Amino acid sequence: MNHKMIVYLTAQIVRAVGVLLLLPVIVAAIYGEIPSLLAFAGTGIGMIVLGTLVTLKKPKNHSVYTREGMAVVACAWITMSVLGALPYVFSGEIPNLADAIFETASGLTTTGSTILSDIEGMSRSCLFWRAFTHFIGGMGVLIFMLAVLPQSDTRTMHLVRAESAGPTAGKLVSKMSSSLRILYAIYITLTLTEMILLLLGGMPFFDAITTAFSTAGTGGFSIRGGSIADYNSAYIDGIVTLFMLLFSVNFSLYFLVVSGKFLQAVKNEELHVLLGIVLAATVAITINISGFYGGILKAFRYASFQVLTIISTAGFATADYTEWPMFSQTLLMVLMFVGGCAGSTGGGLKVMRIMVLVKSVIKEIRCTLSPRSVVVVKCDGRKVDKEVVHGIAYYFVVFMFLLAVSVLLLGLDGHDVPTTVTAVITCMNNVGPGLNEIGPSGNFAGFSAWAKLLLSADMLLGRLEIYPLLVLFTINKK
Amino acid sequence: MNHKMIVYLTAQIVRAVGVLLLLPVIVAAIYGEIPSLLAFAGTGIGMIVLGTLVTLKKPKNHSVYTREGMAVVACAWITMSVLGALPYVFSGEIPNLADAIFETASGLTTTGSTILSDIEGMSRSCLFWRAFTHFIGGMGVLIFMLAVLPQSDTRTMHLVRAESAGPTAGKLVSKMSSSLRILYAIYITLTLTEMILLLLGGMPFFDAITTAFSTAGTGGFSIRGGSIADYNSAYIDGIVTLFMLLFSVNFSLYFLVVSGKFLQAVKNEELHVLLGIVLAATVAITINISGFYGGILKAFRYASFQVLTIISTAGFATADYTEWPMFSQTLLMVLMFVGGCAGSTGGGLKVMRIMVLVKSVIKEIRCTLSPRSVVVVKCDGRKVDKEVVHGIAYYFVVFMFLLAVSVLLLGLDGHDVPTTVTAVITCMNNVGPGLNEIGPSGNFAGFSAWAKLLLSADMLLGRLEIYPLLVLFTINKK
Repeated sequence: MNHKMIVYLTAQIVRAVGVLLLLPVIVAAIYGEIPSLLAFAGTGIGMIVLGTLVTLKKPKNHSVYTREGMAVVACAWITMSVLGALPYVFSGEIPNLADAIFETASGLTTTGSTILSDIEGMSRSCLFWRAFTHFIGGMGVLIFMLAVLPQSDTRTMHLVRAESAGPTAGKLVSKMSSSLRILYAIYITLTLTEMILLLLGGMPFFDAITTAFSTAGTGGFSIRGGSIADYNSAYIDGIVTLFMLLFSVNFSLYFLVVSGKFLQAVKNEELHVLLGIVLAATVAITINISGFYGGILKAFRYASFQVLTIISTAGFATADYTEWPMFSQTLLMVLMFVGGCAGSTGGGLKVMRIMVLVKSVIKEIRCTLSPRSVVVVKCDGRKVDKEVVHGIAYYFVVFMFLLAVSVLLLGLDGHDVPTTVTAVITCMNNVGPGLNEIGPSGNFAGFSAWAKLLLSADMLLGRLEIYPLLVLFTINKK
Repeated sequence: MNHKMIVYLTAQIVRAVGVLLLLPVIVAAIYGEIPSLLAFAGTGIGMIVLGTLVTLKKPKNHSVYTREGMAVVACAWITMSVLGALPYVFSGEIPNLADAIFETASGLTTTGSTILSDIEGMSRSCLFWRAFTHFIGGMGVLIFMLAVLPQSDTRTMHLVRAESAGPTAGKLVSKMSSSLRILYAIYITLTLTEMILLLLGGMPFFDAITTAFSTAGTGGFSIRGGSIADYNSAYIDGIVTLFMLLFSVNFSLYFLVVSGKFLQAVKNEELHVLLGIVLAATVAITINISGFYGGILKAFRYASFQVLTIISTAGFATADYTEWPMFSQTLLMVLMFVGGCAGSTGGGLKVMRIMVLVKSVIKEIRCTLSPRSVVVVKCDGRKVDKEVVHGIAYYFVVFMFLLAVSVLLLGLDGHDVPTTVTAVITCMNNVGPGLNEIGPSGNFAGFSAWAKLLLSADMLLGRLEIYPLLVLFTINKK
């Protein structure tokens, strides 16, 4: 393992994040928030100086392979979660370090779970930083850096493969860095479009920009205690619902659309499955809660929003689903595992994995029942490689095992079973809210410090899809 | 598919069960319970007549392969669950058919979940039949028949493979029917030993025989409303705990011991894993609940019993664990999935599968982190075939998917989330109790009729390890 290169690349990221921390400094200056201004400026400058000092000497050995790529990704996310938490602590807005790390990890991993009970009491610059961590994390801390920094192509590919969401990482165009710039252009365009549409709906500027950031990363932090429900507008609900769906779609489909290959994009099988699940769940919940809201239209508004907030793993709220009939709650809990498409900003297991798993389950049943038949798993009409299918099955097994272990450990913190189990589910799938104590109107403040750190680790495990974090435990071998 | 042979074999089983129904008739005669006597005698004689009529003409085509084997097993268990429920209905003890089917399926699959709220109000003969269904189901309805009836060996093997618990089905001695007789001898000896030890502890005869039947099948039905706790005896708790452990062990190990190969038996890796899990969980829970009981010894007594009742999937109770600290509850919920060893009467995923899964997860992680390494999954020092490992991984995936679907469907019945989720978990793993409404002091009476039938299907899915039931849906093909 090339340790020096891991340190060098991590330091580069630290420096770049230092630069990003200067954005909240501007916000603090505008709103005249002196403690926050000093905290963000101090941390930002400190990170730039530290990062610059470490990166002064470039290691002679440039080689970065899969293992190094994974280690860099894991180091980068952990470092970011800790350093990004410092301004909260220094400004006194979130004095406890474990709380601040939880909030930052929740932001970067686009989970959107919060330990804050008085959100409106926070400074504007801190609220901005919270939403901005979603925006950074949505496309991946590292991809964010790589899109800006010049890098050799093969190295980039190894890093992207270690970080990118979903079972497949492909290039859009032959040059990796160009692909990343295109993806970022799509990401920023969609975000700006949502912001403008929210402004047109009468949302204040600061609210629009932070909501757009949170939607883009499918994170879910809101600057209002009551989340999107506070705006009390069917138009705003609709816009956010639409964009949660758009950000759950594989970004390469937008690239196809932009390149004039519209037909190829709409033929995408994963897209059909996503839309099918969203539609079926929305219809089922609309019927189930229509009595609760006394009408189909209102029920549809709340059902579609809540289905998309869970499946996109954003975690915004316009209704407290813990008050809904049990069927809707159970359905939403199962949907937490699905998540967005591969190559979107959504979390969860990803639609692609669920699709391949269901197909391989059907195949497995057929083969067991009539051993002579040979059934092949196909996606988009092409055969899926056997190794990929096995990899996905084992990913699911590993995921469920880590989930069980986390539930056991979190059980030591003494919360009731639904809180404990859904806390782990929501954090590992990067959704945000859960049931009981941590429902849409609750928060994670009730957990003890170590439990918050455990859940932060679960968020990172879910976001980085497990393996990059595990590689850190083998870093000293070889 | 050889339909005639499936009908023929199912009818043979119906006839044999008719004979078994004459046992509760004797009990009814002893205690002078006239309605129960008529109900059991009527159903029993009816089944014997029906079974005899259908089996009068043996089909010309004798061939029974894996698919037919699976179909017979599925038909047999479903038929048994329905016909075995009739005496409850006819005697008026459980007037509702869905309730009666749930109770019988729960008995035969050795789940032990009950819809009864007034157990002591039942007739003795019905209580006997309840416990006896555990005893029949423990070794498998079919294996029970095969051990008695003379059969050609190859056909038996196909049937046993379709029914036997766990990922592997092997012969103990070269002749299959001899193997089955040996297994039954072990089963009956252990049951009688427990019965005698319970009698020595001052338990009444009727209680001792029914408790021994329930322990043998790792079922969990008790003839007391308060389960084993009602006897209020540390000795009886200890005996039941010990025998729950003994019935969770692979029966072929007892065969090895009897054959003088004691060392080979104690070297068994699955046994070590089972004992390791039991020990670790007992220690953890003892520490966790010692404050609750004000002492380590008392805490150990209740912890060891409850750990074994869950891991053996018996489901007896000496304490209401829903009042315990959350960590213990969470741990017990996770243990529900483990179950007994392959080839024992315990349910769950089986220790063997968990063992292979954990090993293959470690292997998978190693291979992902350093792609050049080749890691092999070994059990008892021998390499496990790649196909077997994949089969187990997919079994887990299929199991979790069916669990999710069942949770969604049961969600329509409107119970709270812990009740809904643990009802499915406890039924699919054949454990018995769950959390909240269905805790050790609760029961399943609150579910609606269709929900009880769904849970009955879940019990059968779990007991028959899914595939035999699925084969019924393909019965018309080919």
